[in-house]
Amino acid sequence: MLEFWRDGPTKAAIVDFVERVVSDVPPEERVAVFDNDGTLWCEKPMYVQLDFLLRRFKEQAEADASLRDRQPYLAAYTGDLGWLGDAVTKHYGGDDADFKLLLAAVLSAHHAITVEEHASRVDAFFAEARHPTLGRQYTSCGYAPMVELLRYLEDKGFTNYIVSGGGRDFMRPVTWQMYGIPRERVVGSSVGLRFEGADVYTTAEPEFLDDGPMKPVRLWSRIGRRPILAAGNSNGDIEMLEFTRGLRLLVRHDDADREFDYVTGAEKALDLAAAEGWTVASMKSDWTTVFDPG
Amino acid sequence: MLEFWRDGPTKAAIVDFVERVVSDVPPEERVAVFDNDGTLWCEKPMYVQLDFLLRRFKEQAEADASLRDRQPYLAAYTGDLGWLGDAVTKHYGGDDADFKLLLAAVLSAHHAITVEEHASRVDAFFAEARHPTLGRQYTSCGYAPMVELLRYLEDKGFTNYIVSGGGRDFMRPVTWQMYGIPRERVVGSSVGLRFEGADVYTTAEPEFLDDGPMKPVRLWSRIGRRPILAAGNSNGDIEMLEFTRGLRLLVRHDDADREFDYVTGAEKALDLAAAEGWTVASMKSDWTTVFDPG
Repeated sequence: MLEFWRDGPTKAAIVDFVERVVSDVPPEERVAVFDNDGTLWCEKPMYVQLDFLLRRFKEQAEADASLRDRQPYLAAYTGDLGWLGDAVTKHYGGDDADFKLLLAAVLSAHHAITVEEHASRVDAFFAEARHPTLGRQYTSCGYAPMVELLRYLEDKGFTNYIVSGGGRDFMRPVTWQMYGIPRERVVGSSVGLRFEGADVYTTAEPEFLDDGPMKPVRLWSRIGRRPILAAGNSNGDIEMLEFTRGLRLLVRHDDADREFDYVTGAEKALDLAAAEGWTVASMKSDWTTVFDPG
Repeated sequence: MLEFWRDGPTKAAIVDFVERVVSDVPPEERVAVFDNDGTLWCEKPMYVQLDFLLRRFKEQAEADASLRDRQPYLAAYTGDLGWLGDAVTKHYGGDDADFKLLLAAVLSAHHAITVEEHASRVDAFFAEARHPTLGRQYTSCGYAPMVELLRYLEDKGFTNYIVSGGGRDFMRPVTWQMYGIPRERVVGSSVGLRFEGADVYTTAEPEFLDDGPMKPVRLWSRIGRRPILAAGNSNGDIEMLEFTRGLRLLVRHDDADREFDYVTGAEKALDLAAAEGWTVASMKSDWTTVFDPG
């Protein structure tokens, strides 16, 4: 067990905690929650879901020429993605005009289809798409030590959930295959749905952005229990980690050779981890491999 | 198995369906959803949750004399509940003034407390409260044949969920004890929650009313699978039954001796059941007992 984890204080903290849980906590309360982007799979150079959306924007622009001179379709169609980064930068600087264009396109990208059709589009994406720099299918971009941790926890009677800012309905089709987490245990961001005829359809209305303080809210709404183990990697995971009574695990991206080396978006989380004694898993030091060597 | 179900076409329809599922449907797709009020437990002469709320209104009026001349606190304080029925009647007639007072009181009854404190209040209610006419604790007002059906389905590899218009956080504390359904498999109406400090708090903002067309939406959001068995008893369950591909079961309240005899609020569902061939469970004819004889 945990063979992809090097012996050391991080692995010891995990094992010591889990052994205590096995003797002290009833199985139904052994709830563990995991962020997805950057915690269970690679989130660089862009979120996997952004790749999914850009391909859709391009497809929409190919079908409708009038979209090709409008953003973000122009960026997706030409492959010149600078506009996207600028839109996000301006958003943080208080200028929301471009970000709103992006958000509207995101929300409408897959609207007015049945939830089953949405799942089919996600399946088609994952069957084909590959990570742009790692040369792997996205479904092979899960972190092997984290998948091993999921199996270890299950073996000890834990129930694992994903609690991610990513789209719930984008993750569900692959979480079983990648992580052994079934779709009913995937909590994520969502658009509103509506019922018509005998089917449930997507809308272009935002419902939940499952990030920051919404993570404990959404996980509690879905699970009805306070987790005893939470794992994340960024500032958006802080509140979920604070809500957790037990082991707080932060994945640190410090391995430029095998994955990526960055702290942007994780600064506060890393500071809190140091101040509060959360367990930090260094990809470089604590993991013998990052991706499945198989 | 199903000893509380009399031999006949209803029981045969259930058993035949389940046996086919066992040979044809993989276990992860064996999702069964159950309405609660009137399907798993008694909803007459008033919803159990209304009793919970009225006790809270009375408690609030006892603590704050200024509430005693305002509705619905006056009704709860004096026990003269006529105003409540009138408020609902006027609501259906298009006059919403009183109904809005009621709704505001409902939403604020347990607001600004942690979700754990809310669960404690529910626990305290169920430890003490008894059904007004059946002379049983509410936790003994579950329908024994339906609980038996839940166990039978589990035994056949089904996963059971509650999908109710009742409050999610009102049901969760008792669903394991009453039905063997854990809190993470309870879908219901909810108020908004917010995170502060390291805790999740209730608000007085409505979030979801899990009834009618919202039932398939909410169950899909939570489960991510289309059910193959659904059970309900009222018009509010129609859309959930329509979304289900498999066995649709409608509980018919036609047993004045052992429970109650009413069709109000179920007229359309019963018509549809007849027209569409849904399976109807008559309390009087199909069940050897209504409540646990133990």
